[in-house]
Amino acid sequence: MSENRSYAILGTGALGGFYGARLQQVGLDVHFLLRSDYEYVKKHGLFIESPDGSFRLSHVNAYRNVLDVPPCDVVVVALKTTQNNLLRQMLPSLVKDNSVVLVLQNGLGVEEDVAAIVGSNRVMGGLCFTCNDKVAPGHIRHLRYGVITLAEYACNYLTCGITERMLQVKSDFESAGVLIQLAEDLLLARWKKLICNIPFNGLTVVLNATIKDLISDVHTRALIEQMMQEMVAVAAAYGRAIADDYIEKRLKFIAKMGPYRTSTKIDFDQRRSLEVEAIFGKPLRAAQQAGLDTPQLAMLYRQLKFLDTYYCTNQAIAVLSH
Amino acid sequence: MSENRSYAILGTGALGGFYGARLQQVGLDVHFLLRSDYEYVKKHGLFIESPDGSFRLSHVNAYRNVLDVPPCDVVVVALKTTQNNLLRQMLPSLVKDNSVVLVLQNGLGVEEDVAAIVGSNRVMGGLCFTCNDKVAPGHIRHLRYGVITLAEYACNYLTCGITERMLQVKSDFESAGVLIQLAEDLLLARWKKLICNIPFNGLTVVLNATIKDLISDVHTRALIEQMMQEMVAVAAAYGRAIADDYIEKRLKFIAKMGPYRTSTKIDFDQRRSLEVEAIFGKPLRAAQQAGLDTPQLAMLYRQLKFLDTYYCTNQAIAVLSH
Repeated sequence: MSENRSYAILGTGALGGFYGARLQQVGLDVHFLLRSDYEYVKKHGLFIESPDGSFRLSHVNAYRNVLDVPPCDVVVVALKTTQNNLLRQMLPSLVKDNSVVLVLQNGLGVEEDVAAIVGSNRVMGGLCFTCNDKVAPGHIRHLRYGVITLAEYACNYLTCGITERMLQVKSDFESAGVLIQLAEDLLLARWKKLICNIPFNGLTVVLNATIKDLISDVHTRALIEQMMQEMVAVAAAYGRAIADDYIEKRLKFIAKMGPYRTSTKIDFDQRRSLEVEAIFGKPLRAAQQAGLDTPQLAMLYRQLKFLDTYYCTNQAIAVLSH
Repeated sequence: MSENRSYAILGTGALGGFYGARLQQVGLDVHFLLRSDYEYVKKHGLFIESPDGSFRLSHVNAYRNVLDVPPCDVVVVALKTTQNNLLRQMLPSLVKDNSVVLVLQNGLGVEEDVAAIVGSNRVMGGLCFTCNDKVAPGHIRHLRYGVITLAEYACNYLTCGITERMLQVKSDFESAGVLIQLAEDLLLARWKKLICNIPFNGLTVVLNATIKDLISDVHTRALIEQMMQEMVAVAAAYGRAIADDYIEKRLKFIAKMGPYRTSTKIDFDQRRSLEVEAIFGKPLRAAQQAGLDTPQLAMLYRQLKFLDTYYCTNQAIAVLSH
C-alpha cells in the first residue's frame, strides 16, 4: 500500500460514516458511498456528534454510484450484512493490486464472502466495539467506545499473526483517534464477539429490553449465560479455546455499561431488516456442522426470523445508479 | 349433590362471568364473587355478548366478600392462577359435605392446589376451549367455541372414570347451552391442552404475534412442533401416551381458527400478571423431575418470566373485604 493511503467507505451509516469522517478529519483521502443520504451529504457533508469532540466535515467525496469511486488502498465494508449480495457488484472496481478490504461487519463468515470476490489475500476483519446511531441524514451520533479489533483473514481462518499492513491500518486509525487492538486469530476474535452479540443482540429484540434489564433479571441472566456456554462449545469445536472466566468477565463489564441499544435492537426499532443470518444463522449452522446441539441459539434464530419477516422491511436497495 | 344445584363463581371475569351467566340464565342458583367490577355488576348485572345470542342479566347475586357467599353445590374456580394464593381463604366456607370444586383454570397441577385445601374427593377439573374477553365492567364478549372437557381429580391424578356427579354437572351446563365433553383421565386432558397452550400462549406474547402468523411462518411453525414434541415426551414420562398424529391434527385445526388472541396474550396486552407458573413453570418442573431436558420450554419460561416482571403488574388483590 502507498504511504498516504486512500479509503473507500461502503455504507456511510452509523459505523462507516463515523470512522470514515474521523479518517478524513486528520487528512486522509476518503471516499464515501451513500444511498438514501447521498443528496444531503453531497450538499452538506457529515456531522459527527461525539463525547470525544463533535465536528463537521462540510465537504466529503460522496458517491451514489460505486463505479465513480476510485480504487482505494483500503476498502471498508460497513454495509449491513443484509446487503452483502451487493458486494459482488461493488468490490471488483475498487480494489487495486495491493488493496485490502477491511470488513467491519458483525457475524460469522463475513470475510469468506468477501474473499470469494477479491481473493483471500486481500481481506482483513475488523470487530467494532462502539455505540453509534445515525440520527438524521449525514448526522451520526457516537455515544461511547469505538475500539476496533483488527485481524488478518486467511483461507479457512488460519491464524496469520500480525502483518505489516495491519500496522499501517492501525497507524491510520490511531492518527484519527480510533483505538486499534491487533489480534492474531480472526476466528477467535469473531467467536468472542459472537458470544456477547448472540444473547444480547437477540434478546434485546425479542424481549424489547435493554442490556441492563436482561442482565439484572435472574431468568434472562441464566439464559444469557447458557447461550454463551453453547457458543463457547461451538468455538472449541473449531479449535478456538475460550478461557473459563471469559463469560463472567464479559458479563461483569457489560453490567456496567450504560443503557445502550444493541445494533440489532436499533435495526428492529427502525424496522430495518435484521442481520439474522450473519449473527445467528451462520453460528447455528457452524454448530450443526460440528455436530453440536445448541437449542437456545436455534430457538432464538427462529424467533428472530419470524420478527424479521413480520416486522422489518427488506428495502429494495439500488446502489448502482443508471 | 341436591337436585337443584347451586353454583358459586370465584372470579367473574371473561370465563367465570360467561359460564355463570349462562347457568343463571336457565334458572340455576348462581353466586358471583367479584373484585373490581363489584359495584357496577351489583347495580347493572351482567351483559353477555355472544354469536350464540347476547343477553343481559339485570340482577345477579354479586358479592365482594367471600364470607357472604353461601356454601354451594358446585364451586367454580375461575380466577387467574396468579391469584391462587387466595384459595386458602376462599374455599373453606364455600364447600358443603357433598360440594365439588370445579377448577376451570389453565395449567398443570391446579387441582392439586385445590385438593390440598378441600380434599381430593371434592375436586373436578374443567378444561375450557373458548375465546372470551371482558371488554368492560360486567360486559363479557364471547367470540367463539365454549366447550369444556370435564374430568374427575384423584390423588396423584389417578384415572377415575366417569362419575355420577360429572353427569350432573354436564347436565347443568348442557341445559345452559354449554357443550361438555367427559374425560376419564384428567392428567391426559391437561397435557393435551398444554401441548397447545405452551407454544401458542407463550409465543404470541414473546413475539407479539397472532396464532395465525405463528403457524404460517416456517420458522415458528417448526419451533411450535418441536415444543409440542417436548411436551409429548414429558406426558409419556408420566404415563400419558399421546398419539403420533395428535400434533398434526391439532395444528391443522388451529390453522383454521380465526385471529383470536390467547388468554396469555390478552393478559399481556392488558399488562396483567401472566400465568407463567401454571402454564409453563409447572410443566417445566415436571419435565425436570422426570429427568427430561426441554430446552425450548425452559427458554420460553425464562423469556416469559422476564416479560412478566418488566411489563406486567402484580396487582395487590383484596377479595376479603373488612
